[in-house]
Amino acid sequence: MEIALLGGTGDIGEGLALRWARDTDHSIIIGSRDSDRAERKANEYRSVLKETGATPNVAGYGNETAAEFAEVVVVSVPPEYASSTVESVAPVLGEGDILVSPAVRMTRDAAGFHYDPPEAGTVAEAIDDVAPVDVPVVSAFQNLAAGALSDLDNDLEADVIVTGDDGEAKRTVEALAEDIDGLRALDGGPLANTGVVESLTPLLINLAMNNDGMHDVGVRFE
Amino acid sequence: MEIALLGGTGDIGEGLALRWARDTDHSIIIGSRDSDRAERKANEYRSVLKETGATPNVAGYGNETAAEFAEVVVVSVPPEYASSTVESVAPVLGEGDILVSPAVRMTRDAAGFHYDPPEAGTVAEAIDDVAPVDVPVVSAFQNLAAGALSDLDNDLEADVIVTGDDGEAKRTVEALAEDIDGLRALDGGPLANTGVVESLTPLLINLAMNNDGMHDVGVRFE
Repeated sequence: MEIALLGGTGDIGEGLALRWARDTDHSIIIGSRDSDRAERKANEYRSVLKETGATPNVAGYGNETAAEFAEVVVVSVPPEYASSTVESVAPVLGEGDILVSPAVRMTRDAAGFHYDPPEAGTVAEAIDDVAPVDVPVVSAFQNLAAGALSDLDNDLEADVIVTGDDGEAKRTVEALAEDIDGLRALDGGPLANTGVVESLTPLLINLAMNNDGMHDVGVRFE
Repeated sequence: MEIALLGGTGDIGEGLALRWARDTDHSIIIGSRDSDRAERKANEYRSVLKETGATPNVAGYGNETAAEFAEVVVVSVPPEYASSTVESVAPVLGEGDILVSPAVRMTRDAAGFHYDPPEAGTVAEAIDDVAPVDVPVVSAFQNLAAGALSDLDNDLEADVIVTGDDGEAKRTVEALAEDIDGLRALDGGPLANTGVVESLTPLLINLAMNNDGMHDVGVRFE
């Protein structure tokens, strides 16, 4: 399968790219607004992956080309650019494609991190509002610590909550999550349930800030 | 230590009462608007506890009397009654007492459960707004499944996130959480961080609704 990571030069995009490239046979396409930067990052990821003995299937392109090549398009850009990024690639998306929303809008003050949902309710729903009607949006991967994901020496053991309104698209993303060693996918229900998933991210950061040994902590439901 | 559970005849109150009564030497005082009901429930809990071989230290009173007797007062009433319950017991609270907020306001629709914070921001902050100034409010226990807690045959293994602005009160509540076998307390930061803790509760219910074998699931951060 072809997976594009728009904003794949950033934290969470890097982590997902490295894990999928190492743990699966999927083709990973790093997208960036700047195609040179995407290419450089893809090179960098290939070097990291070769050190692990993996045969990296990673390329870098501008976001639009990346989205065009892929069936699964992960919108791993900062949340303030999520909608505009999807708008910019919408013309190349169509039936059979899936948009994945891992971003979370947060604010920070003296107390800690707080959930700051956009007007649409969640980043995932904001993306859904501008996505082509035949392209389902699935939310996932919000609660993975980028540092834990990017460090390939680190064994993951974390849950990924998947929400969405299209059952088949959800199953695809659940399978992609479980393709990564140590991740378990859980069904969070329809896209309208995404708020309580996104809001878990600032909680994880607050726990890391206030407790020893909880840097890059993940979550398990059991 | 004397612990009052206002609304201790309800789900989460029952679970905390049974666990503290079994696992600790603390005196547990069940509070209810109806003192007869509190007494009946305390009797019921004593019977359950005797079957486990424990020596139950559980009494039942009206909410005001329960609050008066206790140093730690858990507001385990439904969220819509949290503020009015605290207002009703405020005259008997004073320095050295601690209010604990475990309630969460939620809505339910066809998609699932959603977080529905009160105007004050959280139930904990709504309580804080009406609590006597010298009585700190600590939030905790929101994310424990009442069923898992009440079933004493069930071994717990879950995290309790504690938030609050008074360090000493927080340490007291963290210790009370860890007094229950299988619970680990984590510091979530100041009371202003409580929103992302309360909103984890509807997520846990959504996961239970959408995944096999996740009834009464708890959460672990690791």
